[in-house]
Amino acid sequence: MKVVVIGAGNVATHLAKALYAANVQVTQVWSHHNENAKTLAAELNAKAIANLSEIDLAADICLVAIKDDAIVEIANQLKDFKGLIAHTSGAVNLNVFECQFENYGVFYPLQTFSKSKEVDFKVIPLCLEANNKSSLDKLKELASKLSRNIVEINSEKRKILHLAAVFACNFTNHLYELADEILKANQLDFDILRPLIAETAEKVQTAFPLDVQTGPAIRNDEQTLIKHQQLLLKQPQLLDIYKTLSDSIKKTK
Amino acid sequence: MKVVVIGAGNVATHLAKALYAANVQVTQVWSHHNENAKTLAAELNAKAIANLSEIDLAADICLVAIKDDAIVEIANQLKDFKGLIAHTSGAVNLNVFECQFENYGVFYPLQTFSKSKEVDFKVIPLCLEANNKSSLDKLKELASKLSRNIVEINSEKRKILHLAAVFACNFTNHLYELADEILKANQLDFDILRPLIAETAEKVQTAFPLDVQTGPAIRNDEQTLIKHQQLLLKQPQLLDIYKTLSDSIKKTK
Repeated sequence: MKVVVIGAGNVATHLAKALYAANVQVTQVWSHHNENAKTLAAELNAKAIANLSEIDLAADICLVAIKDDAIVEIANQLKDFKGLIAHTSGAVNLNVFECQFENYGVFYPLQTFSKSKEVDFKVIPLCLEANNKSSLDKLKELASKLSRNIVEINSEKRKILHLAAVFACNFTNHLYELADEILKANQLDFDILRPLIAETAEKVQTAFPLDVQTGPAIRNDEQTLIKHQQLLLKQPQLLDIYKTLSDSIKKTK
Repeated sequence: MKVVVIGAGNVATHLAKALYAANVQVTQVWSHHNENAKTLAAELNAKAIANLSEIDLAADICLVAIKDDAIVEIANQLKDFKGLIAHTSGAVNLNVFECQFENYGVFYPLQTFSKSKEVDFKVIPLCLEANNKSSLDKLKELASKLSRNIVEINSEKRKILHLAAVFACNFTNHLYELADEILKANQLDFDILRPLIAETAEKVQTAFPLDVQTGPAIRNDEQTLIKHQQLLLKQPQLLDIYKTLSDSIKKTK
């Protein structure tokens, strides 16, 4: 199975390396930034191509792992490709490919990727969708080389999943960041929060978050809620977030 | 060292059990709900007392692990106690004890406790404060039996820390809960998000959250931000949280 990777960002890099580690042949890498393509290709014994017209038309699968907004434009440039094309986005519909391709799909790894951090692909849910059975089977074959956690999901539900992931991951990381800001402004080190952050995530690996909610809002501890808001009086944005989320917690009871 | 535990909620239970496991003698447990005191005391070979007047005046340390709002009232009832009294709250000032006691302190474990889940006390930051050196030394001695992570911190900074912990833990868990709500409403299982949640927390164990932020807001992916907001049109509270946090992420760049 020969795979071409379009993109050299976080998702493309982690995915391409995981494929390489699983003995899947990645033959070419293209990126909007040719230098990034070269860097990634070098790690895969692949070829960095500078123009999409150089794409290997005989490759089995073309994985498009780029910014959502750019997928349509890149797809238009790839329309001579006769293999199976799949994007890796949580938010983009399968039918983005329907006008240009016969065999197309989605290969969405539900995970947060940063270049600096290795991830264990074996547990990552790989969310698959395709326009026909043979394409879906091909994506499943590829996915099974990387993960034990394969999920068939249509575009509508994938968008919901992506939205939920924004709450559970992107917003969560931002709350870590706000906590760090609060600490830094008071000469306290983020290190002191790390065990708490780890435990908060670990708890919900077996429990449901509703059953393990703690803190002043769920306890209706009004004195503490007021004290916290007083500490944030000079940071209206943090105060707004504090109020919004505390009110939301109170409503879950 | 003889310890009396006031409270039988999540913090009291985990702390008392950890003390027992560390061979610290917990002699008595009191709770507003006597049945809870009995249950906890039975696990510690301790005595459940129904009235605070029965407290062992010869105990070395009295740990007050109850709701913040109730600490003053309980302290007033304990004023004959001559040992070292300490509360376990992040948000209550040390001086809550100054009118009734000679030796007092704070023993604040920076962690989220749920009865259903065991925790490893060894890594939990135990944040200590006392009104004199001998009391601080006594708290340090107790803390060192439980954890490798002992932090001396005054009341002002402890309140800041507690506030930061609300962002990093309580609000974070609530975002998990909102994600679960979004999934449930669309017949999707929370299980699919668990690896993402684990990785999001694991990433910041070595990195700073600002350096590993991902998602549509940090990428300025306006198409996806708009699509997500359209999915939330019928849930104004979730929409409000989505907008508030996305705007806040955009401002961190």
